[in-house]
Amino acid sequence: MTVRAPRPLARLLPGLALLCAALTAQAAAPAYPDAANSDPVKLGWMVGSPPPADKQIRFADGSYFRFPQLRWTVSHFRELMPTVGVSRGVGAPGKLQYALRNDIDALTFTPTGASQPMTWQDSLAANYTDGIVVLHKGRVVYERYFGSLTPTGQHGAMSVTKSFVGTLAALLAAEGKLDPARKVADYVPELAKSGFGDATVRQLMDMTTGIRFSENYADPNAEVWQHANAGNPLPKPAGYQGPQSYYEFLPTIHGEGKHGEAFGYRTANTDALGWVIARASGKSVPQLMSEKIWQKLGAEQDAYMTVDSTGTAFAGGGLNTGLRDLARFGEMLRNNGTYNGQQIVPAAAVADIRKGGDKAAFAKAGYSQLPGWSYRNMWWVSHNPHGAFMARGVHGQALYIDPTAQMVIARYASYPVASNKAIDPTSLPAYHALALHLMGKR
Amino acid sequence: MTVRAPRPLARLLPGLALLCAALTAQAAAPAYPDAANSDPVKLGWMVGSPPPADKQIRFADGSYFRFPQLRWTVSHFRELMPTVGVSRGVGAPGKLQYALRNDIDALTFTPTGASQPMTWQDSLAANYTDGIVVLHKGRVVYERYFGSLTPTGQHGAMSVTKSFVGTLAALLAAEGKLDPARKVADYVPELAKSGFGDATVRQLMDMTTGIRFSENYADPNAEVWQHANAGNPLPKPAGYQGPQSYYEFLPTIHGEGKHGEAFGYRTANTDALGWVIARASGKSVPQLMSEKIWQKLGAEQDAYMTVDSTGTAFAGGGLNTGLRDLARFGEMLRNNGTYNGQQIVPAAAVADIRKGGDKAAFAKAGYSQLPGWSYRNMWWVSHNPHGAFMARGVHGQALYIDPTAQMVIARYASYPVASNKAIDPTSLPAYHALALHLMGKR
Repeated sequence: MTVRAPRPLARLLPGLALLCAALTAQAAAPAYPDAANSDPVKLGWMVGSPPPADKQIRFADGSYFRFPQLRWTVSHFRELMPTVGVSRGVGAPGKLQYALRNDIDALTFTPTGASQPMTWQDSLAANYTDGIVVLHKGRVVYERYFGSLTPTGQHGAMSVTKSFVGTLAALLAAEGKLDPARKVADYVPELAKSGFGDATVRQLMDMTTGIRFSENYADPNAEVWQHANAGNPLPKPAGYQGPQSYYEFLPTIHGEGKHGEAFGYRTANTDALGWVIARASGKSVPQLMSEKIWQKLGAEQDAYMTVDSTGTAFAGGGLNTGLRDLARFGEMLRNNGTYNGQQIVPAAAVADIRKGGDKAAFAKAGYSQLPGWSYRNMWWVSHNPHGAFMARGVHGQALYIDPTAQMVIARYASYPVASNKAIDPTSLPAYHALALHLMGKR
Repeated sequence: MTVRAPRPLARLLPGLALLCAALTAQAAAPAYPDAANSDPVKLGWMVGSPPPADKQIRFADGSYFRFPQLRWTVSHFRELMPTVGVSRGVGAPGKLQYALRNDIDALTFTPTGASQPMTWQDSLAANYTDGIVVLHKGRVVYERYFGSLTPTGQHGAMSVTKSFVGTLAALLAAEGKLDPARKVADYVPELAKSGFGDATVRQLMDMTTGIRFSENYADPNAEVWQHANAGNPLPKPAGYQGPQSYYEFLPTIHGEGKHGEAFGYRTANTDALGWVIARASGKSVPQLMSEKIWQKLGAEQDAYMTVDSTGTAFAGGGLNTGLRDLARFGEMLRNNGTYNGQQIVPAAAVADIRKGGDKAAFAKAGYSQLPGWSYRNMWWVSHNPHGAFMARGVHGQALYIDPTAQMVIARYASYPVASNKAIDPTSLPAYHALALHLMGKR
């Protein structure tokens, strides 16, 4: 069985521009091996001392982000590039309560746009799931690992990182240490002349800035490539004249359109927000994340973030965590910021995430698979009857919080296509079906 | 105050060959700022978003291993290069018992070759100590942190790594999974034609192989530079024709002299031993270290190792750990392999370390500051009346175990000079004085 990719969305990485251009130009979408046939353990990536040449995955040659190599990479980023730790501290982890259920695998749902139902169990392979944990009323009711991910391993959170950064910003705002109404340039003077300069911090947090940031991967001059090249920790190639780091790149971004009118999902906003946070708090994003969240959660593993050549963490997508710890973070938000016996994020900050953002601004971005949703503090808010909200990252990373069903789902995946448009149809209806099931409504 | 460097021993890293050659050629040794004036926190390395240009430390330009930048680097290796985790698992750490004493700082000892006594407290600054923990009868009696190291941070163990690797080999031998009497080539056929091929694994473990491995840093063709260049995780420079990884480099080492006759401290032996271990166990050194040692110790932090561009860990010096966890490892060995409620390393393996190696072979290496010592299973054995044995790494990394005094000292440091010859005079007599003090003998 193979999966047809609707339209491959290339990843933020140097050296793949030509490949991406080629893929985009192709009339027929490429076929990918399915989950079983792309299982990184079965394929034997990086096994052996040394691994055989055709089983090696390296950073410099770009092989780490090809599929199916990607299925190994997502659990091994630190072995490929420099990273900074997000310490959990050194105490005992918080105890996770278990109440495992055996009635979930057989649960059925109908994927978006499909005519036939699918079982929950089948959805895991369809989604190239690497690991999934479901909490109900704070207890683990379901937990599975596949491929390269293990309970003691870590996995790239991709853009789920953004929701951590947005939560930190909302937390600082609730604590009175960051004023969302102020201009970005008030916190980061280096951004004054950039497209971000006269935007408010709030517009950054909700991604409604008007900036010129092309994600056209077929265009080698697109800002998305400049961003990737600037943040690449390897020495720049001879003749490279561009920015050397995230903080050299961000000031080069131009304005385009008006701030505050439309949602525009652009990763550079989160890196700019990370910069604002660093200036407002006097601490880097990973330091602040450790102090304000990770140490308090009772995390069982340190997390880490990838860094550029100057040591700046990739706020837009560089976080890696253990799966259970991601679930702990979700459970804390479900409980209005309280977890592990303490108020970790102010309830006001969580309320501000859950109430969501400007639906009209969101609608302008044309996410047809997310009708009626909004984006607030770097969270995706469904506004469904359950008040569900999500952190979402490419290739299927997801943290889904359903307050009504008292349910949290943490999922790491390595879907061959970056865009969640491809994976939502077998994910979002499954999550809602499970919510209803746990509530005893079906 | 400044410290005169007797003879700078350059570090294993590319790009510094010229600098090292210059230093070696200098008639007068350079002066270094003392501990207070080289304090990495006071100097503000890598503080700010971004840090000012003159406060940045980078891998690619070699600044990370210059002094005093080195004092920051030793606690931040993972931010500069790719690493692989040594998981502690996800359970609760073992509880360290505390019985802090306030009579240690005033303890005096006479440094080797000195006429005046020095206090223990003064020795910490003299040694550029980053952190030190002393266990007596299993309880922490003394603990201090300086510079960039914190209780939740990690520090480069440098060649203390070798003693972990040697312990793993001794453990596999005690378990019957590795035969020290067999030839290296029996385990790693790729080494058959190299200088290692007809050496026994025992000779590798005790560093009595006869191999050509120059550590003359002034010679750009010295094997020590080939080793460093091969293991450098960055892409090789244009025109580079040499080996691409540790496992490509090791087979190129030639034989020189007879095996088994003289101790010769050459890092390549440990990397070759790591390879043997990987083949004998089917697991990489960091995997095996996690399973056999780290998870069982009740470590409070994951450790990690630096890796080359193919993901192979630097067995000769790439380990980084929390200071208390290093002390736990020492305490386990003091207790004949038992710790945290279980036999972690077979008692026979610990006994084989403690009994030491060939003193005559050791004497040939000319370590005048270590008279009567020997080297066994990658441990330095004092054969003093207390039966003390040590793990030692450049720039002052040390794990000192005194079974008679029931004392373990774990010290991380960033002494400006690599060679322990410079730091031993204010360290070894201090350790023995503390042992006697804790025994109530002075």
